Amino acid sequence: MLQKKNAVLVDGVVLNGPIIDSEAGQKFVEEACKIIMEEVIQKANDVTEKVCEWRAPETLKMILDLEMRDTGESHQKLLQLCQDVIQYSVKTSHPRFFNQLYAGIDYYSLVARFITEALNPSVYTYEVSPVFLLVEEVVIKKMIEFIGWEEGDGIFNPGGSVSNMYAMNLARYKFCPEIKEKGLSGLPRLVLFTSEECHYSMKKAASFLGIGTENVYFIKTDERGKMIPEELEKQVQRARKEGSAPFLVCATAGTTVLGAFDPLDKIANICEKHGLWLHVDASWGGSALISKKHCKLLHGIHRADSVAWNPHKMLMAGIQCCALLVKDNSGLLKKCYSAKAAYLFQQDKFYDVNYDTGDKSIQCSRRPDAFKFWLMWKALGTTGLEERVNRALALARYLVEEIKKREGFQLLLEPEYANVCFWYIPPSLRKMEEGPEFWQKLHQVAPIIKERMMKKGSMMLGYQPHRGKVNFFRQVVISPQVSREDMDFLLDEMEQLAKDL
Amino acid sequence: MLQKKNAVLVDGVVLNGPIIDSEAGQKFVEEACKIIMEEVIQKANDVTEKVCEWRAPETLKMILDLEMRDTGESHQKLLQLCQDVIQYSVKTSHPRFFNQLYAGIDYYSLVARFITEALNPSVYTYEVSPVFLLVEEVVIKKMIEFIGWEEGDGIFNPGGSVSNMYAMNLARYKFCPEIKEKGLSGLPRLVLFTSEECHYSMKKAASFLGIGTENVYFIKTDERGKMIPEELEKQVQRARKEGSAPFLVCATAGTTVLGAFDPLDKIANICEKHGLWLHVDASWGGSALISKKHCKLLHGIHRADSVAWNPHKMLMAGIQCCALLVKDNSGLLKKCYSAKAAYLFQQDKFYDVNYDTGDKSIQCSRRPDAFKFWLMWKALGTTGLEERVNRALALARYLVEEIKKREGFQLLLEPEYANVCFWYIPPSLRKMEEGPEFWQKLHQVAPIIKERMMKKGSMMLGYQPHRGKVNFFRQVVISPQVSREDMDFLLDEMEQLAKDL
Repeated sequence: MLQKKNAVLVDGVVLNGPIIDSEAGQKFVEEACKIIMEEVIQKANDVTEKVCEWRAPETLKMILDLEMRDTGESHQKLLQLCQDVIQYSVKTSHPRFFNQLYAGIDYYSLVARFITEALNPSVYTYEVSPVFLLVEEVVIKKMIEFIGWEEGDGIFNPGGSVSNMYAMNLARYKFCPEIKEKGLSGLPRLVLFTSEECHYSMKKAASFLGIGTENVYFIKTDERGKMIPEELEKQVQRARKEGSAPFLVCATAGTTVLGAFDPLDKIANICEKHGLWLHVDASWGGSALISKKHCKLLHGIHRADSVAWNPHKMLMAGIQCCALLVKDNSGLLKKCYSAKAAYLFQQDKFYDVNYDTGDKSIQCSRRPDAFKFWLMWKALGTTGLEERVNRALALARYLVEEIKKREGFQLLLEPEYANVCFWYIPPSLRKMEEGPEFWQKLHQVAPIIKERMMKKGSMMLGYQPHRGKVNFFRQVVISPQVSREDMDFLLDEMEQLAKDL
Repeated sequence: MLQKKNAVLVDGVVLNGPIIDSEAGQKFVEEACKIIMEEVIQKANDVTEKVCEWRAPETLKMILDLEMRDTGESHQKLLQLCQDVIQYSVKTSHPRFFNQLYAGIDYYSLVARFITEALNPSVYTYEVSPVFLLVEEVVIKKMIEFIGWEEGDGIFNPGGSVSNMYAMNLARYKFCPEIKEKGLSGLPRLVLFTSEECHYSMKKAASFLGIGTENVYFIKTDERGKMIPEELEKQVQRARKEGSAPFLVCATAGTTVLGAFDPLDKIANICEKHGLWLHVDASWGGSALISKKHCKLLHGIHRADSVAWNPHKMLMAGIQCCALLVKDNSGLLKKCYSAKAAYLFQQDKFYDVNYDTGDKSIQCSRRPDAFKFWLMWKALGTTGLEERVNRALALARYLVEEIKKREGFQLLLEPEYANVCFWYIPPSLRKMEEGPEFWQKLHQVAPIIKERMMKKGSMMLGYQPHRGKVNFFRQVVISPQVSREDMDFLLDEMEQLAKDL
């Protein structure tokens, strides 16, 4: 350490060495890490623990001392706060957390996340993020390989919704590059097409980008939730007749509720015929590309112009880990997004500034999300990732077969992916005819069961009404910590929770 | 633990309990945490360590074994990889990392980040993120208090650039709500105003939102980098005469390069007169609001309609921690952004669904970024945060005075914030007249010094050309780990690195 000099007084502040007690700070981190290890990581796989410790908002506000005051709290008080935060947070890594399209714990990605939090990098230039930029490059290259493109480009960004926005803007730029400077004012109405079952981010994106939600033409789907190509063809022709400007088709590989895969090959034919950009929102379903057995679900994806794929979902890389991948390798991404900020992207640097990829982004500071996926991939190998996907889908299949065997459970449809959608019909409704009254009563069942399971904390799965269907459960299996015993438990527990209904 | 049942074979997969070795996984996490503690956290304040261990891209690719293979690596190999990643990453927490608008390490926010990485939550509904939603609410309320609004709304999001986009879209929605559905096609040209010194995200946002970069009217600034209100008035009138539709003024509180603060009060007068939305990009300067001494830099901010403020910069909450704050409390944010996804935002939940704030967001999955700021605030108290700001600005002031005393250093301008911009004039140029040749030669100095400091690893600070000024250094002081000795070091080291130039 250098020698400390005399104190000086500047602007009323005494400057005399650092003002932080590093030793106490490091001790605090160590103690907190112990709590995290014991209360979160070690308990993650323990099914005797609760998935959630439900408290109503007003109660939870009283338990947690939320107020921020003039004076700081003691380390002891802070450690107690950390305990409380953990206790009352939902354990998304619990083997019986089936509520979202992510779940479980991966030790390798977790370590990567701890490393990046400690290093606190931002990924825009090679000079400040050398490792993370190289890692992002190699991960994107690998993902492109699984899509089946010979070359391409890409960027990690904060979410599938944002990936879809990137793609929409990119397709628009390709369609009419002047929009970057001139904007949409005075142009013909741009129209894009996506299925009725698409993720809600399509509407958000169209609104955000100034395209307008009414210019998203929703294409009818079949009973399985897949876009009907003939309907797409019709709608493209309708748009042309209206004098509007079709520019983009957003297909979905793995819809949010039903887990449906649009027929990409047939859709690609239509896009080719009409000169439309094909974007595939594979945020959820993209991970099937890793599996030789299941990659056929995305047959034709190599014909897409762009793909959104979130390894934080089925591959468990941790929220968020989302890539937008682009087939173009002529610098379209950079041309579309660059703003050439001189304070970051100086051209007279002493290294090859092509490594400064930050100007491809809509963000300035950007997290190194590719890194957690990379470390996990290094640890498990492609084979390990493939095993996860195969096993999750086998567990979903197991659940489906068990559902078929049990009285009171009714599948909505045969799943092709990890979304198992079903109704639980409680004893009092089993003899009723399937008329309006039956459906109206059944609609009220899921919210009651959900309330009971949350208050008991035994498991979490989601329900929703969907396109004319009354409230049903959507069960999602992801994590390798989940076993068939948990599937059986789910069914038993549901019967238990609803036996008086 | 429940009893394990017999194995079953489904789809070629043997289902027989979890497939993950939790014990080995936990041990790996523990060993990696030890490395993180020793190599990152404990070394963070050690000025005898290097800020960076520079390697050219091609060399670094060879050192790091980047390729992802079919088979996974051993824990031992992975731990070595983690070591390498840390070794070759830039130490942004090093007391001599002055390269960006973030730096240093805060132990409390770091613990909060470890907790959220372990819990892996997504913040959209109260049922999956009860703690983090309540925390976000209280943090937003507190930030609004410091802005000086009586009420308001807000959302944490992935970056100041994204905050600016949110604001731009919100102002547009307020101006003409039908844009959400209809889009911009056929509408008059929307025009917004911001200063020449604004962040480059303004152009990115205008392009992304379909407004077009040509419809960003850049307002002249004075010699200090502040927007000239009279010029703004002129440009608004020009836009009106052109028949375009002015809707927004984006003022900057703390510009990226010079650290300048636009005169908010005068700008607010013009916005009021013309009925324009006033957004203040206080991503960098917002933290001065915490200081009773320096909050006057943002005088008039309470008159803004929206504010972007990044506590991950001067307040050190960790990348990313960025809030967009909105004065409106009538639900404008929700009206503008909602898409009402039924699978997340069911209306028949058993709790008050007003706590499900996810539909205010352009994202679906969203990280709990407010939490790290909250825990830090709890730990330090407002007084502790204020002390940080005051001390960082005092250190900047100290540096300025030292620069004035030394031969060869030349300030660009008197800073009012933490950006200290200066030229280092090496011995060979000191006797030269300040003509074109001088400037052209001086322009080449900073890149050479930068290369030398990177290769030596002794410190990192950024340089850039800026608005007709040749390459100069921008020194940014943030962290409480930095001391005046580091300021002296910076000046000595620069002399040392450039003595032969």
